[in-house]
Amino acid sequence: MYAIKISEPGGPESLVWEEVPDPVPGPGEVLVDVVAGAVNRADILQRQGFYNPPPGTSPYPGLECSGRIAALGPGASGWAVGDEVCALLSGGSYAEKVVVPVGQLLPLPEGVDLVRAAALPEVVCTVWSNVFMVAHLRPGETLLVHGGSSGIGTMAIQLAKAVGAKVAVTAGTKEKLDRCAELGADILINYREQDFVAEIERATGGAGVDVILDNMGAKYLDRNVSSLAVNGRLAIIGLQGGTRGELNLGMLLSKRAAVTATTLRARPLEEKAAIVAAVREHVWPLIAAGHVRPVVDRELPMPEAAEAHRVVEASEHVGKVLLVVP
Amino acid sequence: MYAIKISEPGGPESLVWEEVPDPVPGPGEVLVDVVAGAVNRADILQRQGFYNPPPGTSPYPGLECSGRIAALGPGASGWAVGDEVCALLSGGSYAEKVVVPVGQLLPLPEGVDLVRAAALPEVVCTVWSNVFMVAHLRPGETLLVHGGSSGIGTMAIQLAKAVGAKVAVTAGTKEKLDRCAELGADILINYREQDFVAEIERATGGAGVDVILDNMGAKYLDRNVSSLAVNGRLAIIGLQGGTRGELNLGMLLSKRAAVTATTLRARPLEEKAAIVAAVREHVWPLIAAGHVRPVVDRELPMPEAAEAHRVVEASEHVGKVLLVVP
Repeated sequence: MYAIKISEPGGPESLVWEEVPDPVPGPGEVLVDVVAGAVNRADILQRQGFYNPPPGTSPYPGLECSGRIAALGPGASGWAVGDEVCALLSGGSYAEKVVVPVGQLLPLPEGVDLVRAAALPEVVCTVWSNVFMVAHLRPGETLLVHGGSSGIGTMAIQLAKAVGAKVAVTAGTKEKLDRCAELGADILINYREQDFVAEIERATGGAGVDVILDNMGAKYLDRNVSSLAVNGRLAIIGLQGGTRGELNLGMLLSKRAAVTATTLRARPLEEKAAIVAAVREHVWPLIAAGHVRPVVDRELPMPEAAEAHRVVEASEHVGKVLLVVP
Repeated sequence: MYAIKISEPGGPESLVWEEVPDPVPGPGEVLVDVVAGAVNRADILQRQGFYNPPPGTSPYPGLECSGRIAALGPGASGWAVGDEVCALLSGGSYAEKVVVPVGQLLPLPEGVDLVRAAALPEVVCTVWSNVFMVAHLRPGETLLVHGGSSGIGTMAIQLAKAVGAKVAVTAGTKEKLDRCAELGADILINYREQDFVAEIERATGGAGVDVILDNMGAKYLDRNVSSLAVNGRLAIIGLQGGTRGELNLGMLLSKRAAVTATTLRARPLEEKAAIVAAVREHVWPLIAAGHVRPVVDRELPMPEAAEAHRVVEASEHVGKVLLVVP
């Protein structure tokens, strides 16, 4: 098969479309003929050499895909050759074929075509596991999403609105905030021009937000805690603003608040399978009902992965950038 | 009635036994003739002027008591005059009489006399709400308790052991660690002579602990995160080591860990009632069965509250110091 290899850690030009050996499904795994993959920020860190795949994982980047099952490994049950699926991966979707543990397979949700289904697994699983399974966002509560126009952000807005929560977002341009508003965001904050703590305080009458989904880490830690309501939960899923920050425990204590930090990729198989099962139970019906949809910025041929990375690194996109197998 | 008044913020000598007006139970409250109260570290902060009672609370210190119901306020049901009870309070137990919302009353647990029952409400509710309701300690997991010989510590050891968890403790003397061992603690760390991070690493084969119950805050924040296992939960209930500390979010993320900080006193009535109900359901049977008992260091006459504070501030005690109404 062909796959995107990382020739050496570096810029987008280090992504090369090359012929490589086909992967072979092991026990409890299936082989998928990839139709499309999607770009995540973690792929860029991996390309730069900062986020190596866990042991036993494909060396090629890519945390999600859509495609058709091509073969079943020993003991893989519940699926058949030819099934159209999408899948959560620890790596390997920038390729014509990829091996997937059966617990990480999802059927296509009703109303979503095979290419666009590639936009779903990573963002849906990340948002569902953090905002709902860890932070327990409830109807009537308020969620603040940093980077509201990202793949994660556009999904978080839709899911939170679908369960009856109010949503605040930060983004860097008016155009991105307009897109967030179209998806249902109630409170729009341009982080280049406004102080999000002051805006949240104003918009919530001083109460703060119940849950924050954060990708900035240290840079926003103190301000995020300032924006939390009593019983608030800060769910950190990325560290784009640094890894060590000062935590105001006095404020955290007075708010009886929580700070959590998670990644999806490093979780053991059984935890990933539990998240995928929860997503199929709770989110797939919302997509089938039209309340939630994949937001796709553009589709590029997979050999042009370098261009896709340039787009994502420049934050030119809204939603997901897909890589379609030629 | 007589009560301990704080004459002015300051040292133990500012605690004065004086005649004051009787309190009057409001709707949903009862009046309790206090038999005994217990000292908590929060009382010392209140005496020093650093921890004022929430609005509407008794001005006298004391977060727990035992006694007999003397009168019912309007609409107070489920209890009768003469009932022997213990109670979780927002203040006021350093007195001959105190007003208690009915949701914060507990019957005497089987096998505990009326004086010693005063040692239970605050520590049991604090440990149960943090270690079990927030941090979800499970059988087979490991709990680290800082200050294992304190009132909170001695209760945390017993409750964790009673549900089948393993317990590590820190304390400052061999004598205190011996007492922790008698209560069931498995891993004993003298924080004056040993580095708890190294000891936890050694004792858990590098895995770390699943839950930490911490009263030190900033001073231990970085080391606590270092000692957490994957999926670990750090529950902070005190800030004796400062309020602002550096949080290593990279480590938190790689462990998929959580930091929570709570106080019991500031919670709204319905949350306190839920905790008290959970304690009655889950902890009272453990006490009745003899698996868990109040650990009382000494009983002093309530007018000698100043001496009780001196003992607690000097950390001369193991378990609880009680104040008995003369």
